Amino acid sequence: MVGSRGGGGQTVIGVGRADIEAAAERIGGHVRRTPVLRLEAGALGIDPGPASLSLKLELFQHTGSFKPRGAFSRILAAEVPEAGVITASGGNHGQAVAHVARQLGLRAEIFVPSGSPPLKAERIRASGAEVTVTGQYYDDAMEACLRRAAETGALLVHPYDDPAVVAGQGTLGMELAEQLPDLDTVLVAVGGGGLVAGVAAWFRGAVKVVGVEPEGCPALAAAMAAGRPVEVGVGGVASDSLGARRIGEVPFAIARDHVEEAVLIPDTAILDAQWRLWDGVRVLSEPGGAASLAALVCGAYRPAPGERVAAVICGGNTGQLPVRP
Amino acid sequence: MVGSRGGGGQTVIGVGRADIEAAAERIGGHVRRTPVLRLEAGALGIDPGPASLSLKLELFQHTGSFKPRGAFSRILAAEVPEAGVITASGGNHGQAVAHVARQLGLRAEIFVPSGSPPLKAERIRASGAEVTVTGQYYDDAMEACLRRAAETGALLVHPYDDPAVVAGQGTLGMELAEQLPDLDTVLVAVGGGGLVAGVAAWFRGAVKVVGVEPEGCPALAAAMAAGRPVEVGVGGVASDSLGARRIGEVPFAIARDHVEEAVLIPDTAILDAQWRLWDGVRVLSEPGGAASLAALVCGAYRPAPGERVAAVICGGNTGQLPVRP
Repeated sequence: MVGSRGGGGQTVIGVGRADIEAAAERIGGHVRRTPVLRLEAGALGIDPGPASLSLKLELFQHTGSFKPRGAFSRILAAEVPEAGVITASGGNHGQAVAHVARQLGLRAEIFVPSGSPPLKAERIRASGAEVTVTGQYYDDAMEACLRRAAETGALLVHPYDDPAVVAGQGTLGMELAEQLPDLDTVLVAVGGGGLVAGVAAWFRGAVKVVGVEPEGCPALAAAMAAGRPVEVGVGGVASDSLGARRIGEVPFAIARDHVEEAVLIPDTAILDAQWRLWDGVRVLSEPGGAASLAALVCGAYRPAPGERVAAVICGGNTGQLPVRP
Repeated sequence: MVGSRGGGGQTVIGVGRADIEAAAERIGGHVRRTPVLRLEAGALGIDPGPASLSLKLELFQHTGSFKPRGAFSRILAAEVPEAGVITASGGNHGQAVAHVARQLGLRAEIFVPSGSPPLKAERIRASGAEVTVTGQYYDDAMEACLRRAAETGALLVHPYDDPAVVAGQGTLGMELAEQLPDLDTVLVAVGGGGLVAGVAAWFRGAVKVVGVEPEGCPALAAAMAAGRPVEVGVGGVASDSLGARRIGEVPFAIARDHVEEAVLIPDTAILDAQWRLWDGVRVLSEPGGAASLAALVCGAYRPAPGERVAAVICGGNTGQLPVRP
């Protein structure tokens, strides 16, 4: 992984295609190659719809989100101490780390913010990890996690601000390039930025990568406007999966160069997209998983004539059926 | 379509690969090519699991089941009268016919048995078709439908006992052969037999086709034992989609020669399979949609060492999340 100059002058760690290929090699036997569904013209009532709309159904990954890609990538690249692995997570990353630990026979300790759905904490416990519920949002839980990691010496598996994690998420981009060789644009939801940065690090402009954020958690849009990661408010229907207070340094260094734009969407569009996925395709995503599609639903992203678009449906950890908006 | 001798001595109409190719041509612009997900060894806790297990995710077809393949095939091959199209259906075929009619600008009248989930009748109404709820099971509704068809002259679109319908369902087999060229065995749920016959008519022994039926609706198993379609009881958790009292003549003539065996599964296995699909993959199927997988879950079908198996997940029209058994 190569060093590069960050916006603030500090050296940051970049992620290149070779890093993603190496991550794909590490995690190959452990993650699923998730399928792509090409929809028909005019699908899901999106107007103006793209010339073709494909869904990358990453919610069918182990533990119901893309997170095992980054977690396996990080943990399989490290020497793991006796104390095992530790992290903080709104739930999806925590489930992934707990899953990886169980698969590899490691101890795992996960700090979950109280604002996350109980379903996610239950699933982490069911994987055999130790769970501590603390703080309202992700960042509060991460503070407690870092204190505990200093005590135990466990390996911190950061949800996004780590080159090995970003390279792991980038394997989704590599897969998508094979599955949809004629793609123009991919829409990716943004929380702390690991997935969007990984995908952008793979495509490096060959395909337009658009970050999609809820208006209530605009970490990438705010960072792009300021030229550096800045703190933002966190709230809304997708905050349990997309609610980072600040984009990661590693993701931002990539996103600044290779993410075309960050668009903001209202919660109503997220719920509408979640409903349309269920009503029109029988795919049950969580709110954060439908955010990419929401950008098309509400027109925050308007494809040009002839544009071929994919939306990454990145999470399915919900305990409720969507309702018609 | 070629004539052949049925078990009872009467001439029945067969379905060959050319018929399925012609159906694929007719319906190509109208149906989705649904994705396949290859799972890892040991997936879903199935023991002994197959060497590889793939899911054909046909529940993401329009209207949430495979039924539009057959309905488009039949209707696009016919001269449709002013009175439009008519059928009887536990719900999935009815939704498909209503969808086809709306897409093609035709009138549609659908007879739905009272035992079907209200969700299905609602979705048919939402497609603009006229709905009559009558009788407890499918066959009762079909009687009323046939009387009405005689009055109006509308085109009957039979859910399964029609070569053009079977050829349409066979396009799923054709697709699967392209998607999984190394497949040994495919598990297919059986109601009236349209899907299993279509798939078997495509593979013609090149891939082993296994029909899976709930113990409560054993139409194919009973017909295979008797050497001809016979009447069976209808009940259980999947009867709204698999509850035909008798296998169709057209499907049986194909199944007799090209379906390897029909296995029976208890309702508990269906609910267990539905749960495992949700818990392990975040795929939400209806009971009938999980029946194929249930044959592996309960050991009604035991793969040989090295056997590569696909299960067709053929329907997703449920209004409830599965619960842990």
